[in-house]
Amino acid sequence: MFSLTAEYALRAMACLALTPDQLVPTPNLARQTKVPPNYLAKVLQLLSAAGLIAGRRGVGGGYRLARASDQITLLEVLRSVTQVERIRACPLGIPSHGTNLCPLHRKIDEAAATVIEIFGQATLADLLTDPSRPWPLCETTESSARITINGSSVPGPGAGA
Amino acid sequence: MFSLTAEYALRAMACLALTPDQLVPTPNLARQTKVPPNYLAKVLQLLSAAGLIAGRRGVGGGYRLARASDQITLLEVLRSVTQVERIRACPLGIPSHGTNLCPLHRKIDEAAATVIEIFGQATLADLLTDPSRPWPLCETTESSARITINGSSVPGPGAGA
Repeated sequence: MFSLTAEYALRAMACLALTPDQLVPTPNLARQTKVPPNYLAKVLQLLSAAGLIAGRRGVGGGYRLARASDQITLLEVLRSVTQVERIRACPLGIPSHGTNLCPLHRKIDEAAATVIEIFGQATLADLLTDPSRPWPLCETTESSARITINGSSVPGPGAGA
Repeated sequence: MFSLTAEYALRAMACLALTPDQLVPTPNLARQTKVPPNYLAKVLQLLSAAGLIAGRRGVGGGYRLARASDQITLLEVLRSVTQVERIRACPLGIPSHGTNLCPLHRKIDEAAATVIEIFGQATLADLLTDPSRPWPLCETTESSARITINGSSVPGPGAGA
């Protein structure tokens, strides 16, 4: 439903949320998220422009979250790469419709409202706190197992991390 | 939230639903839907390929719905131009995730499920039967007024049409 860019942005942010204190080099991020490196570079520029990630160039450089993972909603990530807005007035500019949307645009608005609610209420941190689920992007069957991200071993979601 | 192509496809189908028995020439459709003609032509090709509209070339030609408006859901229209599917298995192909989606892909799937429900339950006919709302694409403040579509005067949604 969402664009590939949106999917990739969400993957990248979920991946950075796994190791919030570390700068993750773009090649590592590309490998972990399974996103083509050139495509990922463009997505990271959008996320950076939106103030969601911070980067450092050069040796030892990479990207990390610009804020704590519980302070970034999935909706912010989506909105950094695509428009997700309620419809406030007739998109065709028909004067007599104005804010009294026709049934077509009410339906589209209803869908937008639902997506905004679903993604607006979930933070990146929420993705990492369900012990019954595997971690995003991680190859592990045991949620309590230690997993390897960016070369570091970190505890899985079931380990009280 | 949806692509411009999806918005335009929905507009075109809503417009054709207004005069289901008539072939609407593409220029008329472009004017009514306020979609650039070249862009609209491509959207109409997609709708035609999906079997949602039928056309005839030449003088007096144009497009009409391929089925009755109460037999075409908004979801079918969306799906003719974009992918709107539930996520059944890990998009990254991580073997240990399989169908036990991680929280990120569960969220995306939750949004997809909601959109599928909203658009799957609404037909094109449903867009034209709410007397309290203006008709899609039509410049009228009186839902019971007669309106002009494709050169013909037809009764508005409040007139029991």
